[in-house]
Amino acid sequence: MRVLVTGAAGMIGRKLIARLKAEGQLAGRAIEALDLHDIVPADCVSSPAIHMSIHVGDLADPGEAERLLADRPDIVFHLAGVVSGEAEADFDKGYRVNLDGTRRLFDAIRLIDGYAPRVVFSSSIAVFGAPFPEIIPDEFHPTPMTSYGTQKLIGEALLADYTRRGFFDGVGIRLPTINVRPGKPNKAASSFFSSIIREPLAGREAVLPVPRNVLHTHASPRSAVGFLVHAAGLDGAAIGPRRNLTMPGVAVTVGEQIEALERVAGNNVTALIREEPDETVWAIVRNWPTRFAATRARALGFTAEDSFDAIIRAHIEDELGG
Amino acid sequence: MRVLVTGAAGMIGRKLIARLKAEGQLAGRAIEALDLHDIVPADCVSSPAIHMSIHVGDLADPGEAERLLADRPDIVFHLAGVVSGEAEADFDKGYRVNLDGTRRLFDAIRLIDGYAPRVVFSSSIAVFGAPFPEIIPDEFHPTPMTSYGTQKLIGEALLADYTRRGFFDGVGIRLPTINVRPGKPNKAASSFFSSIIREPLAGREAVLPVPRNVLHTHASPRSAVGFLVHAAGLDGAAIGPRRNLTMPGVAVTVGEQIEALERVAGNNVTALIREEPDETVWAIVRNWPTRFAATRARALGFTAEDSFDAIIRAHIEDELGG
Repeated sequence: MRVLVTGAAGMIGRKLIARLKAEGQLAGRAIEALDLHDIVPADCVSSPAIHMSIHVGDLADPGEAERLLADRPDIVFHLAGVVSGEAEADFDKGYRVNLDGTRRLFDAIRLIDGYAPRVVFSSSIAVFGAPFPEIIPDEFHPTPMTSYGTQKLIGEALLADYTRRGFFDGVGIRLPTINVRPGKPNKAASSFFSSIIREPLAGREAVLPVPRNVLHTHASPRSAVGFLVHAAGLDGAAIGPRRNLTMPGVAVTVGEQIEALERVAGNNVTALIREEPDETVWAIVRNWPTRFAATRARALGFTAEDSFDAIIRAHIEDELGG
Repeated sequence: MRVLVTGAAGMIGRKLIARLKAEGQLAGRAIEALDLHDIVPADCVSSPAIHMSIHVGDLADPGEAERLLADRPDIVFHLAGVVSGEAEADFDKGYRVNLDGTRRLFDAIRLIDGYAPRVVFSSSIAVFGAPFPEIIPDEFHPTPMTSYGTQKLIGEALLADYTRRGFFDGVGIRLPTINVRPGKPNKAASSFFSSIIREPLAGREAVLPVPRNVLHTHASPRSAVGFLVHAAGLDGAAIGPRRNLTMPGVAVTVGEQIEALERVAGNNVTALIREEPDETVWAIVRNWPTRFAATRARALGFTAEDSFDAIIRAHIEDELGG
């Protein structure tokens, strides 16, 4: 079996590829070839059993998607995209990459006769916008409050229609906030959710810009990769026509995140968290969704951590050598 | 004030233009000019007070939207589109007209500096797909089951984001089934909703292909025009960020439609309805939405008929000379 990953150089892409190479199989079939696409070359440690191809280019460019599909991958993971902050700062780039790039990929698949691969599309809870009920049900309407969320919503709509038409067999998965993100703090408003865990564990100070009662839903990078792998093997008939699924996660307050960190690593670690309220950050974060039912995803077998302690331990095992 | 109408040659477009010309004003301001656009020339009875311009072309063609906006209309009614059956039969045409045409119009507005007109977009309850709750709330998620519904949903998402960005001031209105449609019966699955009223009133037989307990929501063409005119004058701040509104209507069963016809026109008229069950039609119609809360639209002052009798009387007054 051949597998294509777009956005292969991104954080989730790299972790997905590592898992596919380690397991050597997907959806019950051996992986013979991996096509890795991004705008920069994806890291590629060669594997004895799997043929790896590195593709560099922009999916929104004419002909790029067609070239990428030349070998008819059986499963397509479409992870490529400009992130939320960049899509908000650069309107044209966000629509070009996140909408036009996605549509070109989907259309290139559509126009190949007799070809209908499984397509797994990484969407986001950014498709939802405030105000919210206490628990957001699967049937809640998406009213994004960012251009990124709008572009993801349009990708979901295309995926569902192209699937209904039989052009491919799509599954859209709405990722919650991924925590703990490896790397450095960045200027994203959500950065603190990870940095208040990651930085103290590395012996560095972290700033908490919002009140401790802010509630949010999290899943580890390991769970995000698990969602993608699980989606690749799902029976399309069992999913039905509603192809975009809100993923499960752990809903905790920031205070509960910190309590979990103290349980896992002690209060000398949590002492490195400095509360420094930032009205600008809070104004953004207070409009974010809090808690999801994720009823359908759970029924279809998607699983996430059952506590924030488990999310911290996954980070320690996967990033800090256990 | 200058007003642009796309889809000006369509049924709703023609009725909207007739009302604008009759009233001579919109949103409290006198109309000085009307720009009428469609792929065929719109009917144009000249008016002493209003300058009329007829534009013929395809909004999806590069440059077309830019030409249409040369005189910076203050209010844009974007009604143009390929209908449901055609968008389903011709995939490329549906996406080109309903998605690319809409996006080109929105982008042409966006790219004019210091210009942010009110844009009223005619969407449809086709953005919704079964299964439904008994009453569909404003917060119900859109999961279209046609390419037309998908294209309307994408138009709604773009409208909301372009409005949030300040490129224009948009209102999307989701029209229920328009009844009684003038003209002839056609092959649309929804055709019978109108023809069981229109044809007997004209002394002709009509076929009812579904059971009498089928429930559906209707508004007259007169109400549809009323929605558009009301949307043009709404205060954007009062609407808030959720710019796409499900319109009110009259939810009745087919049996109640027929009882209303008997009250208005007598049983010699309803005797012309012949029940001839058609499984194919029913299989389509049973997946259509039935009853909407339309809470927000009603609170914002949108009104429809309060009974199906009133819908029939509107048809008799507007199409049959009273």
